This record gives sequence, structure tokens and C-alpha cells, in this order.
Amino acid sequence: MSTIQFKITIHMVSSLDGIIAKKDNSVSWFETSDHYDKGVETTKQEVDEFLKTIDCYVMGARTYEHALELSKSYGWAYGNIPTIVVTHRNLSIDKSNIGIYSGDLNKLVNEHLKPKYNNVWIVGGAMLAKEFIRLKLADEIRLSVMPIILGNGTLFFDYIDQEQALHLKDVTAYKSGMVELWYEIKNN
Amino acid sequence: MSTIQFKITIHMVSSLDGIIAKKDNSVSWFETSDHYDKGVETTKQEVDEFLKTIDCYVMGARTYEHALELSKSYGWAYGNIPTIVVTHRNLSIDKSNIGIYSGDLNKLVNEHLKPKYNNVWIVGGAMLAKEFIRLKLADEIRLSVMPIILGNGTLFFDYIDQEQALHLKDVTAYKSGMVELWYEIKNN
Repeated sequence: MSTIQFKITIHMVSSLDGIIAKKDNSVSWFETSDHYDKGVETTKQEVDEFLKTIDCYVMGARTYEHALELSKSYGWAYGNIPTIVVTHRNLSIDKSNIGIYSGDLNKLVNEHLKPKYNNVWIVGGAMLAKEFIRLKLADEIRLSVMPIILGNGTLFFDYIDQEQALHLKDVTAYKSGMVELWYEIKNN
Repeated sequence: MSTIQFKITIHMVSSLDGIIAKKDNSVSWFETSDHYDKGVETTKQEVDEFLKTIDCYVMGARTYEHALELSKSYGWAYGNIPTIVVTHRNLSIDKSNIGIYSGDLNKLVNEHLKPKYNNVWIVGGAMLAKEFIRLKLADEIRLSVMPIILGNGTLFFDYIDQEQALHLKDVTAYKSGMVELWYEIKNN
């Protein structure tokens, strides 16, 4: 019998210079024209299987609004998975699987996430990810580095102002030239 | 017969949050306590053999001064390889293999580096690396990412303000948890 452990993962896609969003919010840079021969390829099915293991998404308000904007062209990226938008703003949300949370993040984790979910993903923005790291609430970081320098925009790690040791868990390079760096956050 | 092509490589060691120098300039974070099972290990001999292929180092004044400071404890890191310090300052340098250059970087590359060297490494700092990328004078980037978040300090890619496509050339993960990302800069 295996016990599934509760885990919070921060997932971001960034350029090599650590930028996760361009000033104009355009996302065409996610589509790389690069080709890395030695890289692995994953099928849509494998990606879907993997995404099924995530049972809750947490995001900030601007990430939510951006995802909503993108959903007009590409559909809502987070399916029917329970999603929590952390914000003090009064967002009008019309999907039943999306909730709003405002307040203490420790309380969010211990009272709302831990009792209900196993595999929670923080998908942005930078401020929220930073708070989760600062408060030692995140267990892992998965950073997908795209083969591009953006040169300007929002930094993923915007001066967390706190040193944090990591443990490299895995590295995967894809045919697209994207490299996924997967770290455990050494919280103890 | 193989032709050795002239190449300028930018090499940096950074934390996951893209920081290459802490505010206090301490370097103990280069020594990681991490262990990555699947990583490769290189012997000192292999490293030395590799370093022999570099025939010129280029660095900024502060990188030079920092390397000089470190040399008191660890010895001069760049051996007898010709080294050019790019600065407008009047540094007093007492090593015969170290020269000063001030002025146009295009001229540095075309008149001083290309005629004499094959494998030039830019080893910092951030400003100089940025200028080489902006001016499209660099051919490759090798970024060694340490398994740590520093949270504050000097960013390697401090808003280059120019988009630059890259080609992933290789990825190497080491037993120490360090990951080397090696990119070609698509200058054309």
C-alpha cells in the first residue's frame, strides 16, 4: 500500500533570462522553432495522463485573467480541475470549479488544500509563487526553460530576498529545445 | 583537415533565480551540498583538458577584481591564458598575460580577438555579457545553474531589452546538482 503525500508544486514556464510574461502578455514565445535532436518527445496522451494527476490549481488574479483571455482562443487550460484564485479583488467568476480565496496562505494550505487534495500546482504569478517559497509552503519547483531570451517582462524569481537550498530531482530536455528543471525545496 | 571556427562563449554560474553574484560577493554557494544520483561526474583531469581548449578570457573590471580577491585564497582561476579586462578604469595589473581594453566591443572582437584566438570565453560580469548579446557578438551561452535560490544580488540577464532566439545545444546534469545549459545564439 502506498501513501500519497500532499505536495505543492510551483510550475512556471520561463525564458532563459527568467521571464515568465512579456509586457504585452503575448504567448507566441511558448512555441519555439528550436529543435534539439537528443530531446524527448511526449505525446498529447502522455501529457493528458500526467495532467490528470494534478487535483488542484492555485493562481493569482492576473494569471487567472490572463488564462481567461487566452481561453477565448485556446480554451480554458485547466479543465474541470478545482482551481483557486488567490486575490483580494472581487472577481466575477462563472465556473463552478473555480473559487476565490483571500487571506492567509498558511491557512489556505492547511485548512483548504491539505484536507482535500494531494497534488496542488501553483501556476503563477510571480508574486504568489514567491510568497509560497518565502513561507516555505511549496515542496517542489518545476521550471520549464524555453530556448529564448526575452529581455524584458515579469521575472519569475523577483528577488525573493531569502536563500533557499534546492535538491535537483530531474532534468528533461525536449525535442522543442525546452528544458524542464525539477527541484525539491529543502524546507527543513 | 578540420577548420577551427572562431567562437565567443558567454559562461556564467547562476542560481536558479538567475543571480550570479551575492551582494557580499561571497562564493560559498558554488559549493553545493546537493546530490543528484543520475548526474555525471567529471574528474579534475577532464576539467583541465577542457579548460585547455579556451585560448582567451574576457571579463569586466569588477569580475577581474573579484577574481583577484578570490585568488588570494584559491589561486588565480584563469591560469596563464591571455585575459582581457574590458574597462575604462585605470587598473594596475601586474600579470603579463592580462591586458586592459577600453572602447568599442565590435573593434575588440574583430581587430583583437578574431585574428589571434579561436575559443574566447566571456566570464562576466552581467553588463559585459549583456553588451555582447545585444551587439550580437556572442555565439554561445553556457549557463551552469546551481541548485539554490539566492533571492538577491546581481542578475545575469538584467533586462537585455531585446529578444534573442536560442538553440539548445546540450544539457548536462552533474552529481553536484548543477545543470549546465548550453545554447547557441541564433544571430542570423
